[in-house]
Amino acid sequence: MSIITVIGAGVMGSAMSFPACDNGHIVRLVGTMLDRDIITFAKQSGFHKTLDRKLPDNVECFQLEELQAALDGVDMIISGVSSFGVEWFCKDILPSLPNNVPVISVTKGMLNNPDGSISSYIKYYETEYPDRSFLAIGGPCTSYELADRDNSFVGFCGNCMDSLLFAKEILESPYYHISLTKDVEGFECAVALKNAYALAVSLAVGLSLKESDILHYNSQAALFTQSTVEIRRLLALFGFYEDNLAFSIGDLYVTIFGGRTRRVGTLFGMGYSFDEVMKELNGVTLESIVISERIGKAILTCVELDKTHKEHFPLLLHIYDIITANAPVNIPWKQFG
Amino acid sequence: MSIITVIGAGVMGSAMSFPACDNGHIVRLVGTMLDRDIITFAKQSGFHKTLDRKLPDNVECFQLEELQAALDGVDMIISGVSSFGVEWFCKDILPSLPNNVPVISVTKGMLNNPDGSISSYIKYYETEYPDRSFLAIGGPCTSYELADRDNSFVGFCGNCMDSLLFAKEILESPYYHISLTKDVEGFECAVALKNAYALAVSLAVGLSLKESDILHYNSQAALFTQSTVEIRRLLALFGFYEDNLAFSIGDLYVTIFGGRTRRVGTLFGMGYSFDEVMKELNGVTLESIVISERIGKAILTCVELDKTHKEHFPLLLHIYDIITANAPVNIPWKQFG
Repeated sequence: MSIITVIGAGVMGSAMSFPACDNGHIVRLVGTMLDRDIITFAKQSGFHKTLDRKLPDNVECFQLEELQAALDGVDMIISGVSSFGVEWFCKDILPSLPNNVPVISVTKGMLNNPDGSISSYIKYYETEYPDRSFLAIGGPCTSYELADRDNSFVGFCGNCMDSLLFAKEILESPYYHISLTKDVEGFECAVALKNAYALAVSLAVGLSLKESDILHYNSQAALFTQSTVEIRRLLALFGFYEDNLAFSIGDLYVTIFGGRTRRVGTLFGMGYSFDEVMKELNGVTLESIVISERIGKAILTCVELDKTHKEHFPLLLHIYDIITANAPVNIPWKQFG
Repeated sequence: MSIITVIGAGVMGSAMSFPACDNGHIVRLVGTMLDRDIITFAKQSGFHKTLDRKLPDNVECFQLEELQAALDGVDMIISGVSSFGVEWFCKDILPSLPNNVPVISVTKGMLNNPDGSISSYIKYYETEYPDRSFLAIGGPCTSYELADRDNSFVGFCGNCMDSLLFAKEILESPYYHISLTKDVEGFECAVALKNAYALAVSLAVGLSLKESDILHYNSQAALFTQSTVEIRRLLALFGFYEDNLAFSIGDLYVTIFGGRTRRVGTLFGMGYSFDEVMKELNGVTLESIVISERIGKAILTCVELDKTHKEHFPLLLHIYDIITANAPVNIPWKQFG
């Protein structure tokens, strides 16, 4: 029996308590300042308000100011913050965590370096704390269905194989299947890309709904095909192994079926401008929008350096234009392939 | 204006008349002996019974015995037969077609050679008629949505670039987008594989429906991820370029959403044996079942020749066991990755 402390009580971090507890471990779920209500309610009722499920019996809940108590005797730490909490987690939380305990992150996304290239959050953490062991989780796994114990197949990446094997031993369950890789940058890039391309495929949902109530799939599949073409090219352009493709593609598949990324892509497809979509979202910025902009920037940097051509990424750069220049949707079909 | 003769009035062959007619061409739709009712009804009403749509105005319908009239002055021939009609088309129809007119096939699938390896229908046709120009169409495009003019992105393959460019000129339209390749075997294998893996991903639909009415996507996405892994490995094993992957993946995406392949995979997942499923289908054999068996055989041949290991294709070989040995569904999750 191990003690796992999850920092960030959003839906994904909280759902990780299901495989952990089913394996007989104790989970201490620590809310950030954004999760105060979730934790207060869960302390009283055992119920997670936004995950909309009862938490397993051996989950204990903590407010952020109780973090030190939640870290007593901890064996593994899960960072459940979103990409918008990465800097806060790095500066305000990491210094107070025990040094010898691996930290595994559920956060998806990539950062732009000053030269326009991209790197993973893990690399960012490791640059700040080179003596620590950081891991990350990626691949197709929605929190709600993980909590419902639907079979899920994910990848864990990290530089230390011992930590990877330890995390797998803690979390692998009859329904939570884990593949391990030491190719952190390639894997993290691949699974981050799916958010950008889920936005792209969802444009077809909106275009289809603009015409009639009947959803069409040929056009979604056309964009899915082109997404596969471009993800393969991006992995090559950024110098990553193509073996990372499968988790990206599987994650793209599941991301299209629901959630805010699909909603945003659908609104673009229906004719909403970026500014109108942001109003609909009450100003909340989505990870899929952030990553599309960052990847677009990275491509344009490579174009400037004469490492590639704009024509190789018509779909991603169309999303980039929609987001950064309020461009109307006009799928560049004839540039595909 | 060109004259296009479509032989085989199934849904896909017939739907090809939409982009052709929208481009101002004349389409002559010739039914096989299986399409007699469809053609009789379409001659009277202009309506295609199984496609469930009115055919474009410049479609003329012909029964099989009127084939010669339908070939008068023809510029391009489309073979709309299913994989079960390939031998008939080759032996009974091809000898009566004008020799200098390209034949483009919508048929998906691969054949097993006597040594267990696989090759395309195009290769089979070309072996019988080495002086003719054969092309094939693949990629994500359902007939109903093509007839509704939803945007579709497909590939045309063939050994003769002039014929490919001619076919593209005839058929490309504002909603029908075409990429060309001379890699016939690699492309045909890739798009045939999607039928086998659509069966595999649909297992998760059945497993999910067995538990509750709520459809889960994590498990579908897990099988989609593993399908991507195995399709990449199969292309490599058979010596084909991985560039063919994207159309396979896009086609897998659209095939999962409906039709008989999804239904069969769902029934397997719900616990029906192969024999019970065949009863439900009234003995009709599906292309997805045929291709799964053929690919399974090709893999096992490679295993015998020590060219690969069974463990690299757990999902495809599980489908093979279900089909050939009435094996119950028991997804080999722990062999994934």
